[in-house]
Parts: sequence; structure tokens; C-alpha cells
Amino acid sequence: MSGSIMIAGLGPGAEDMITPEVRTAIDNATDIIGYIPYVARIAPRAGLSLHPSDNKEELDRAAHAFELACKGHKVVIVSSGDPGVFAMAAAVFEALETGPERWKQIDIEVLPGITAMLAAAAACGAPLGHDFCCINLSDNLKPFALIEKRVGLALEGDFAIAFYNPRSKSRPHGFEKILTLIKARCPADQLIIFARAISTGEQKITVKTIAEAQPDMADMRTLVIVGAKASRKIDTPHKTYIFTPRSSPSQ
Amino acid sequence: MSGSIMIAGLGPGAEDMITPEVRTAIDNATDIIGYIPYVARIAPRAGLSLHPSDNKEELDRAAHAFELACKGHKVVIVSSGDPGVFAMAAAVFEALETGPERWKQIDIEVLPGITAMLAAAAACGAPLGHDFCCINLSDNLKPFALIEKRVGLALEGDFAIAFYNPRSKSRPHGFEKILTLIKARCPADQLIIFARAISTGEQKITVKTIAEAQPDMADMRTLVIVGAKASRKIDTPHKTYIFTPRSSPSQ
Repeated sequence: MSGSIMIAGLGPGAEDMITPEVRTAIDNATDIIGYIPYVARIAPRAGLSLHPSDNKEELDRAAHAFELACKGHKVVIVSSGDPGVFAMAAAVFEALETGPERWKQIDIEVLPGITAMLAAAAACGAPLGHDFCCINLSDNLKPFALIEKRVGLALEGDFAIAFYNPRSKSRPHGFEKILTLIKARCPADQLIIFARAISTGEQKITVKTIAEAQPDMADMRTLVIVGAKASRKIDTPHKTYIFTPRSSPSQ
Repeated sequence: MSGSIMIAGLGPGAEDMITPEVRTAIDNATDIIGYIPYVARIAPRAGLSLHPSDNKEELDRAAHAFELACKGHKVVIVSSGDPGVFAMAAAVFEALETGPERWKQIDIEVLPGITAMLAAAAACGAPLGHDFCCINLSDNLKPFALIEKRVGLALEGDFAIAFYNPRSKSRPHGFEKILTLIKARCPADQLIIFARAISTGEQKITVKTIAEAQPDMADMRTLVIVGAKASRKIDTPHKTYIFTPRSSPSQ
């Protein structure tokens, strides 16, 4: 049996957002590798070894996957959301690049998933209905100045912006700085969405104006979407929807 | 029976990339509305009416969905990929905003799907592994100058960029202009990916350098990804993978 690595996206949390392709990969796996809470989503069964590991151990986790695959195991590395968006796929290729030559014999497949921004956008309407940017606010692997530069450019272009990893206990002040930058550059009534624990039982969506937004409205389980200038609300008896129209305001 | 509208993403083409949530919505629908090739992906069955319509009729299609839902029908509007990314969700809310008040009684849900850029990225590795932008190159609903401005800002920020709808018979020259702009601003060896008919039997992925890229490498079925400066290739005996590392080059 020749080994393989599949890097699979589990989606944001709901079981019925996991694609059949990913489900089949899990069903055929011998080993599941990933961050503790993601591996916890996989049902144990005979013949399947679960290997949960802690956060910030992405390269070690990738190396573990390659070593198991070299022994013939069928390894599935699980990520929340989509594995290609601020998740394990890039880490696996980083490990492959500098790892032993024999790792290059392993077949690697990336199986896409519903990334948090798509599920968050869907849950509140269509705020990403026009051009948008996707920015990781964690400065663990990049300088904060680069984040500030990119946010500034995204605002200048009037992109809607999806922010991943806005705030954590170890990074309490980054989002505060970014929010200050946004408040200085955007109209006070521009919309901002805080989408927490999307598609789980704890889902909470909070829609505010930029003027009302506060840093502590976000944590590590929150996906933040800043609307474009044209983004707007529709109130109905059941729900409030947020959307960004397909036409630019200048037309 | 009270009517409803679900706007559902069918993913890029492969049946096993359709989420169970979307499958259930289709199974429970009385009516399927959408662009001809997307409705063609739905299996006919007793009790289900299929309503295919032509391109550029998004607002009429949305109005049709509301009228059916007002009569108690369970309508599913199908989009390729994700309905919130350059697809039907925004059009439905645009129609709702200016439509008759009674439409606001209808419950609307958006069901996310695997959008083309996620499937394209997965098929070639992890080129969107760092901050990225997503830009619709069609100027049907926005001025071309705005597209040029946004592409310029995205390049200045060294975002990876996913381009939707790069080129069509009625818009043969827009992508050529954008490619000229990219060639003038990016290193000649920066990577560009042409991902055509992703996840279908006709899938074709072409990886080029910016210097090698030609406008006719894209058509309406192509998703184009321009890498960031740090994006790179790994050649193995089986495959070539493209990825953008998680760290910024300055670290």
C-alpha cells in the first residue's frame, strides 16, 4: 500500500457543511492529524488512529504526516474551514520544501472546504457580493506593519474585507489598532459584521456601524467582515440581511 | 405551507463537492431557479419544477423566485460555486430592496458552497495560503477604471489575487489590459495560474510566469490566480505544487 496525504477542510462547524469528498477521505483514512479541536470532530473507529496536536505546531504536524505516509499510511490532515485559507495546506508545502527528498514521493491532495468567510457571509446575506479582500490579522508570522499596509490599501480600494483571527489573548491590541485605522478612514455608518462560532449551536452574528464597533466584539472564534461603502441592510419582519450590491456606486 | 427561498451553492462542478446542506435543500425544493447550465446539474423528479433562465437575467430570476415563494413554493436558486461570490445572493437582495413589500415576508437563506478560487487553489496546492484579494474582472456592472484601481492596490499590497470572469467573447480586451498592468508591476518570474473547468472532467491547470502569460490563456471558464511575490513551486515526480507560505518574506 502506498501512502498518501490529504489535507481536508471540515468547514466552519456544521456537519452538513462537510463535503462528501472530505467525508470519503476521512472514511478511507488510517490516520487523522490536526489541531486538537478539529481532530475532536472526527468519530473514532477501528483502524483509525487520531493524532491531535496543539496550536502553533503546524510544521511538526506536517512532518508527522509525511513520516506516516512514507510508511504507507493514508493520512488525512484536518483543518477547520478550507485548508488553503490560513490553515494547514501552506504549512504542509513549507515542510515539503525543506524536508527530506523521500517526502516528494508522497502524493498530496488538498480537499477544499467551506471557509469561515463564506459561511459567515451566507449567514447574514451577501456582504461579499462584490470585490473583497481576505486578511489574517495574526502577526505571529508577519510584521504588524504589513497588516496595517494591506488594510489601508483594501480600504482605499473600497473592497469588502474579511478578517481572520482578529484577536486572541496573546494578541489583544492588534484588532484595536486596525479598528482605529478603519474608523479614521471609513464613513461612520459603514457596516461591520462580527460573526462568532459560525454554523455551530453558539453562532452569534452582530451587525454594527463602524462608529459603534468596539475591539472586544471580536475574539479568536470571530470572523469580522467590514462592508464596502455600498454595503447596506434590509430589515424584514424575520431577519436583517446585509449585502453588497453587484454594481459599483459610480454606475 | 409557507414559501421560502434558499440560494444554494453547487460548488465548482464535482458532485462530491456539493455540501449535504445544499443537497437536502434541493431534495426538499418544489422549484429550482437558475442559469441554464446550473439548473442542468439538478436531476428531474416528480414534484420538482425546473426553471432555467439565461445569463444577465439575475433580477428577473430573483423576482420569479419571490413570486413563487409568495404562493407557498419552496424555491431553491442555484448558483455555481458559492452564491455569495459574484453570484445570485447579492442579486436576490437587490431585488428584495426595491421589490413589493410582501416579498419581505419570505424567509431567505443563503447556503454556502465551494467557490471556484478555493477549488482551484486546492487543485494546485495552496496559492492562497496568505492574504489575498478576490476581484471580478467583468465590467458589466462596474467601470473598468475601478477594476484597474483595485488590481493596482492589490499588487501594491502583494496580495495573491483570484480573478473571476477574466475574459469572455463580449469582453475580449479587459484581461489583456489587466495582464499588461501586472507585467509592468510584478517580477517576470512571479507565478500565475490558469485553472479551467475546475473539478470537472475537463479540468486543466496551467502554471506560468508573469512573463510567459498570454491573454488567450483565460476564458469565461477560467479562474486566474496571480501569486504573491513569495509564492513558489515545488516539483515532485508526480506533480508540481504551488503555494504561498504563511510567513511574510520580511520575517
